Amino acid sequence: MSNEIDNLAITLAKRPQGLPRITDFAAEARPLGPRSAGAIRCETLYLSLDPYMRSVIAGNHMGHGVDPGDVIAGEAVARVCESDDPEWPVGSLVRCHSGWQQYSDNPPEALASVPAGLSRPSLALSILGMPGLTAWAGMVDLAKVREGDVVVIPAAVGGVGAMAAQLAKRAGATTIAITSGEEKRRIALESLGYDHCIDRIEEDLEQALKQVAPDGVSVYFDLVGDPTLTIVAQQLSIGGRVVLCGLIKDYNGDHKTTGPHPGLWITKRATVNGLVVYDYEPQRSTFEQEFVPLAEAGELVANEQMIEGLAAAPEAFCELMTGNNHGKVVVRVGE
Amino acid sequence: MSNEIDNLAITLAKRPQGLPRITDFAAEARPLGPRSAGAIRCETLYLSLDPYMRSVIAGNHMGHGVDPGDVIAGEAVARVCESDDPEWPVGSLVRCHSGWQQYSDNPPEALASVPAGLSRPSLALSILGMPGLTAWAGMVDLAKVREGDVVVIPAAVGGVGAMAAQLAKRAGATTIAITSGEEKRRIALESLGYDHCIDRIEEDLEQALKQVAPDGVSVYFDLVGDPTLTIVAQQLSIGGRVVLCGLIKDYNGDHKTTGPHPGLWITKRATVNGLVVYDYEPQRSTFEQEFVPLAEAGELVANEQMIEGLAAAPEAFCELMTGNNHGKVVVRVGE
Repeated sequence: MSNEIDNLAITLAKRPQGLPRITDFAAEARPLGPRSAGAIRCETLYLSLDPYMRSVIAGNHMGHGVDPGDVIAGEAVARVCESDDPEWPVGSLVRCHSGWQQYSDNPPEALASVPAGLSRPSLALSILGMPGLTAWAGMVDLAKVREGDVVVIPAAVGGVGAMAAQLAKRAGATTIAITSGEEKRRIALESLGYDHCIDRIEEDLEQALKQVAPDGVSVYFDLVGDPTLTIVAQQLSIGGRVVLCGLIKDYNGDHKTTGPHPGLWITKRATVNGLVVYDYEPQRSTFEQEFVPLAEAGELVANEQMIEGLAAAPEAFCELMTGNNHGKVVVRVGE
Repeated sequence: MSNEIDNLAITLAKRPQGLPRITDFAAEARPLGPRSAGAIRCETLYLSLDPYMRSVIAGNHMGHGVDPGDVIAGEAVARVCESDDPEWPVGSLVRCHSGWQQYSDNPPEALASVPAGLSRPSLALSILGMPGLTAWAGMVDLAKVREGDVVVIPAAVGGVGAMAAQLAKRAGATTIAITSGEEKRRIALESLGYDHCIDRIEEDLEQALKQVAPDGVSVYFDLVGDPTLTIVAQQLSIGGRVVLCGLIKDYNGDHKTTGPHPGLWITKRATVNGLVVYDYEPQRSTFEQEFVPLAEAGELVANEQMIEGLAAAPEAFCELMTGNNHGKVVVRVGE
């Protein structure tokens, strides 16, 4: 590794207004300078694209943001390529917050191991990574999904939705996908094993829910905000549980979720929980120990949508924010 | 008991618009006809006035309502005065949904015993009745109040609030009253043992909460809706619990609570529970067994505001709906 190598980076050209566009991003080949002392240099292999990043580039995600000119923030699976740290020797596979670039220098405390025994390291960004842990936290820890539950999942074939559906099915629940388009319907029903799929564009959500969940919805895992949140909440059964986890619609900045009237939560005797996955880092290894073997045994569907090359990341992110992805979006940056 | 006796009844003259007024009610002396077969005739002793009745007379409380010309609905402690039922002999003290009248005919299944050993039967309408059970359900069953909690209670000296505060103190929590006026402040601090009291009219609620709860509010028992709901929610500590139980402001019909943005529940990792006390009827006897002895031992403050005579009920109810009560409002109808 030397100064002659360029580091391809994707930066924020300007803050998006509403839906992000490709022109909000810029690609730069930056000279790769010498590694800073004590840092561990990593070569990005797989980069994760997630809806929460929309609020990061808006500058207001949980107290941190990316400014114009900065490399877009993001989590990756990477390979250590320069290191003096015996804990992280060259060749180690790690998770790190590389951002959207080929090479990143990281302090050792910012690295995490990719689970041992994982034959597809990208899974550490999808069903066995942050989206999977989010699904587990919402479905298992908060909603305590169980046999007989009727579970509704919007963004149903995305990173969190795909794992949430499988966790719900494993618990014996009936699962209802909310998605759009024929391809995603097929993935939801045939690949991810949802019992029902509602097309949020072609169908009237309220009427469709009444048909497939005539006794009401017992668990709703909200990833999108209004109007879906309020419509599904109105179909809750008594004692229904709602996990509030994402507000995709609001992230684009042109929409403001209000949620249902608090009187509805009273009438439904609902339990509503706010979920931030960062709180679940202490449980990550327990989660990995349970689900890595299942993934390796072929009992979990990852439903990754692999994008080839870092340069394609902006377009893939823009598609993600319009809901045009058909799986957990991962960018293959290196091999 | 004979046909010559008149039955004083308070009926709905017309549906209130906004705050109820005395002219929305009418007093009628109705001839007391013969008792219907199988019914148990009861003489009302104490009538309970509660904010939820505002939505009953609006015609929309949980699927039932009172129409103009009808006797106002309400719960009472009454004495059986005519009965053929050996289970409910003449002289028995009962709880029943008498409505606002001196005499009521009730089917036996609509009667409940006043707890044995209760020297003040009106307590079966206040701290040992529906308001007390509501407080227990919210504070103990849902919020699981515990040592170290910082608990905020609006309508702090009313029926639910008074008992909720005492349950929170018994669990070792710090309690913060939201109320208005000097008399209620005194009751909150001196009689009910609140640690702090915020005057919702004289003080800025947000600033006052930051002062008395610098580390945030861990439990909020909402009885009133917005603006209080949203302001207190913004001061929740991480992992705070909110019990949604009442919407006094909205009951008057001129106000619409929206509650905080769902993103706030996420950021706060809040748990929000809707509470309807009717669900807790199966636990009522357990509740009574625990708290009747404490009340008899003088370890609970009832904070009843006793109104003399059924004819005074409309005015007392109007005062209640403006927040001008200074305790759980009970009307003494008979002796």
